Amino acid sequence: MPEVYDELESIYKRLETHFKDMQDIEFTIEDGKLFMLQTRTGKRTATAAIKIAVDMVKEGLITETEAVKRIKPEQVDQILHPMIDPDAKVEVIARGLPASPGAAVGKIVFTADRAEELAANGEKVILVRTETSPDDIGGMNAAEGILTARGGMTSHAAVVARGMGKCCVAGCGEITIDEAEKKMTIGDLLFHEGDYITLDGSKGEVMKGSVKLIDSGVGGEVGELLRWADDIRRLGVRTNADTPHDAGIARDFGAEGIGLCRTEHMFFGEERIPIVQEMILAESEEERMIPLAKLLEFQREDFKGIFKEMRGLPVTIRLLDPPLHEFLPKKEELIEKINALRSKAKLSRDEESELEKLEEMMSRVEKLHEFNPMLGHRGCRLGITYPEIYNMQVQAIIEAAAELMREGETITPEIMIPLVGELNELKVTKRNVIETAEKVMREKGVKLNYLIGTMIELPRAAITADEIAEEAEFFSFGTNDLTQTTFGFSRDDAGKFLQEYIEKGILPHDPFVTLDKRGVGELMKIAIEKGKKTNPDIKLGICGEHGGDPESIKFADEIGLDYVSCSPYRIPIARIAAAHATLAQREPKDRGL
Amino acid sequence: MPEVYDELESIYKRLETHFKDMQDIEFTIEDGKLFMLQTRTGKRTATAAIKIAVDMVKEGLITETEAVKRIKPEQVDQILHPMIDPDAKVEVIARGLPASPGAAVGKIVFTADRAEELAANGEKVILVRTETSPDDIGGMNAAEGILTARGGMTSHAAVVARGMGKCCVAGCGEITIDEAEKKMTIGDLLFHEGDYITLDGSKGEVMKGSVKLIDSGVGGEVGELLRWADDIRRLGVRTNADTPHDAGIARDFGAEGIGLCRTEHMFFGEERIPIVQEMILAESEEERMIPLAKLLEFQREDFKGIFKEMRGLPVTIRLLDPPLHEFLPKKEELIEKINALRSKAKLSRDEESELEKLEEMMSRVEKLHEFNPMLGHRGCRLGITYPEIYNMQVQAIIEAAAELMREGETITPEIMIPLVGELNELKVTKRNVIETAEKVMREKGVKLNYLIGTMIELPRAAITADEIAEEAEFFSFGTNDLTQTTFGFSRDDAGKFLQEYIEKGILPHDPFVTLDKRGVGELMKIAIEKGKKTNPDIKLGICGEHGGDPESIKFADEIGLDYVSCSPYRIPIARIAAAHATLAQREPKDRGL
Repeated sequence: MPEVYDELESIYKRLETHFKDMQDIEFTIEDGKLFMLQTRTGKRTATAAIKIAVDMVKEGLITETEAVKRIKPEQVDQILHPMIDPDAKVEVIARGLPASPGAAVGKIVFTADRAEELAANGEKVILVRTETSPDDIGGMNAAEGILTARGGMTSHAAVVARGMGKCCVAGCGEITIDEAEKKMTIGDLLFHEGDYITLDGSKGEVMKGSVKLIDSGVGGEVGELLRWADDIRRLGVRTNADTPHDAGIARDFGAEGIGLCRTEHMFFGEERIPIVQEMILAESEEERMIPLAKLLEFQREDFKGIFKEMRGLPVTIRLLDPPLHEFLPKKEELIEKINALRSKAKLSRDEESELEKLEEMMSRVEKLHEFNPMLGHRGCRLGITYPEIYNMQVQAIIEAAAELMREGETITPEIMIPLVGELNELKVTKRNVIETAEKVMREKGVKLNYLIGTMIELPRAAITADEIAEEAEFFSFGTNDLTQTTFGFSRDDAGKFLQEYIEKGILPHDPFVTLDKRGVGELMKIAIEKGKKTNPDIKLGICGEHGGDPESIKFADEIGLDYVSCSPYRIPIARIAAAHATLAQREPKDRGL
Repeated sequence: MPEVYDELESIYKRLETHFKDMQDIEFTIEDGKLFMLQTRTGKRTATAAIKIAVDMVKEGLITETEAVKRIKPEQVDQILHPMIDPDAKVEVIARGLPASPGAAVGKIVFTADRAEELAANGEKVILVRTETSPDDIGGMNAAEGILTARGGMTSHAAVVARGMGKCCVAGCGEITIDEAEKKMTIGDLLFHEGDYITLDGSKGEVMKGSVKLIDSGVGGEVGELLRWADDIRRLGVRTNADTPHDAGIARDFGAEGIGLCRTEHMFFGEERIPIVQEMILAESEEERMIPLAKLLEFQREDFKGIFKEMRGLPVTIRLLDPPLHEFLPKKEELIEKINALRSKAKLSRDEESELEKLEEMMSRVEKLHEFNPMLGHRGCRLGITYPEIYNMQVQAIIEAAAELMREGETITPEIMIPLVGELNELKVTKRNVIETAEKVMREKGVKLNYLIGTMIELPRAAITADEIAEEAEFFSFGTNDLTQTTFGFSRDDAGKFLQEYIEKGILPHDPFVTLDKRGVGELMKIAIEKGKKTNPDIKLGICGEHGGDPESIKFADEIGLDYVSCSPYRIPIARIAAAHATLAQREPKDRGL
């Protein structure tokens, strides 16, 4: 039936031209006659959608803007990670939260140390934990994917995994872990260390055994599409990156600067943590200067590496934020070690001094213990109690920038003071920053520009933003913490009821994933309005997890922020979402906006 | 020199009439001639000040308003507590925070249990703890005074002691406690259990040995002065009281109602806590109904007692607020007990079942563990997850009111939903409250009025107060929690840096003691403005610790609250402070207000 075939071809071409999209058509041929039964826009994988959109631009069927409009930000995310082979037979044995996209296969391990050990031998592992903590970072990095029994979309595991671009299923309540026995159960199924499992972090699924994964295969089309998006968007897109490695990934993905460099992550390295602990255990400022001098060396190299990687793009560095006890061993661990030594009949001299050290550590851990660390002695409160820590960091930043200047680079560091809630906190900290910076520049015989700004992450900072803006050159909305304090929700604990809140319709979505416009957003608007009143030129950004969420990016555009900052792997999403935001602003506001 | 004496008398009478206050004069007589050298308003004890002011009104020298104006609210507080004999020789050995006024003498004890034990034998004890927790309530109540090594003006010890009208010195960093060895050291001094110490909670001093105390001796003058204050003030003065006993004290001090009845305190009684634990350990709603039925009996009696004591005055009852893990034993305690049993070679049948119970408890404690309990699964979040708990409480409230109605009383309970941050939370909880209340009224064949309102203690509640006010009949500002979330300060932990903040002038005062007008106060103003927009008749009160602080009471008056609510022992202070607030409003605003 060649005539009918020709007829069909001409019709579907007409349909595609008319609908400006790939069509899924149904037809029948009866007695040599073609009957068209139905046509609709075809469903497709993310890869196909992007390819089709770009092709259609090339064929002159749609404009670049139209192509950008057609691609959902999430589709760009999907193609950046390996995925489960659609043809594979899978047995889903448990479901958790889709905490970080992509898929991963590996042997089960229950501790971060074991993950690092096996990964060093070239094995692929899945780290399974009740919940993760900063101690687990090394193991998380070594693992292919992460599975936790507890925690929400913004638990430690989820946030860190997204930052690493690593697959994660979080808050999978069906699994029960027995770390001591190195086993876990899911219903009737028992798994031991070394057994294979597969995770789908895009769907939140846990599968038995080793399932086949495929690469989504990104072609040049994505790059093209993202460049079109860049031409459209008003919002800048920066990244949250703490290492040269992450900064490099982010640049490759198109980051236009670093919006948040968290310096505490630099303190957790294996060779550094003993020095950090030495600093914390110091009894006086004088004693503290010795470990600080060692940390200075590390930090300077950290910053040099990051500045270099960003090649002159702006880099916002947040001074130390978490409470000091986060750098000390856990109480339980110490008790165990102390008891083990104490129960010995006789101690060697080494053991005696070890015991003494552990007891000293224990006493410090107890002194630093906090009931609510999130609301404790952290952020600029640390910088005020221990100015020498912040001064060391500022020295490292300025020295790093000065050294690169001599190599011909132009670096304008943006120094960010965290957890400011009151103008005087910023004033005191800023004075120290300037003193240190000026001293370093005098010593090095250089003159460089740097900015000093603050996080807006406490309701009081938003409410008194007019005062704070008098002393700040930029505001970066730390919407993770601002959401915690505005709602009174602990990000680490809210998983216990947030799911229920969403199911019951009390909240429309997890406010740690998509910004709560009516509460947190309202505070942001107050902060912007008040801040601009006293400092019309203030630079405004957002560096919470929301900086990578399309709906929140749209809001950031609406309220007039200058940029969003998100984890490296979300940069492409943010570029598309920012373009969509601009396009939405251009549309006639006839939908009651 | 009778003529000179007469002359002197006439002069000092003229001076006193002129200055309308007791004068401290200096004079000399040379060659029979009287020279007046100096006159100034005499310094006096609080008792004397009040007596003089009232006397002067009776002598027609000053008006009642003038008398009220002359007495500082703190002076009223001072005379309500025993004090150190001014003639006693004292040896101050340490200083802490003046956390709760008055003085106390007693034998040192290091545990709440021991305090109760000795007190039951008629001994006077001082409870010395590193810090106190809800477990210590019984011992705190049994002690004459409380001394803690850690914690600020709003630590658990300080707040509870003020509530009990009991002397407390908190955050006395100089003492080192060895609970196991039952001893403490202060510098070179060593104290054992049973040694006497004396506390001055008004000054924050710790003294060696047993110092003589005297009663301040309140006469009828205070009552008179307070009645004059009542005639002046616009603000209502209610009390925070959780027991008939406290309610009675508060009524005697002039409370016009209860602004905050915390129902969780009713859960901690010795015979109740096992039932509460049974409720928490229940695996299903059905299983939970059994302990809840028992708790219902207790709660109904609690509420009846309180309603009776308040004789028709308004009583605001807050439904359960703290996270459930507060009612379970501490992890360390459980581990110790479990290890003790596990290390036995052979277990009796009883021990076996005990071990099983402990392990079950342990697993629950671990499940309920929260990193930041302040921001955790508490308040109305509990009421939404476990509606049966709130329903039991509402049933108890309505049944208690119904029973008293039959006895001829008129009770209008005010049911308060804690920790609302979003309208839907209030909607869901309110629907359950109404359903339960209507059901009880139908069953009992009574009809009574009750109000449903909410705490405003989260920034998001303040920001969305217009929505919340649509469903709330009253707002009570929970300024303790609102201060915590607005500043991002944990009340239990902030002691570590707040002192430094005040010393360095970063904050003018402890925001948990005196309300922070620029931040927290601004949010309150937003809440009032928005709340009145949708509900012009909404009743407004404050029930945080600030409700008993004169400066904060002045602010409460300025922003138009209807009442303040404070602990029973602060009612007289609040009555005077509220009168001062009214008088200040009447004054011409020529001081840039």
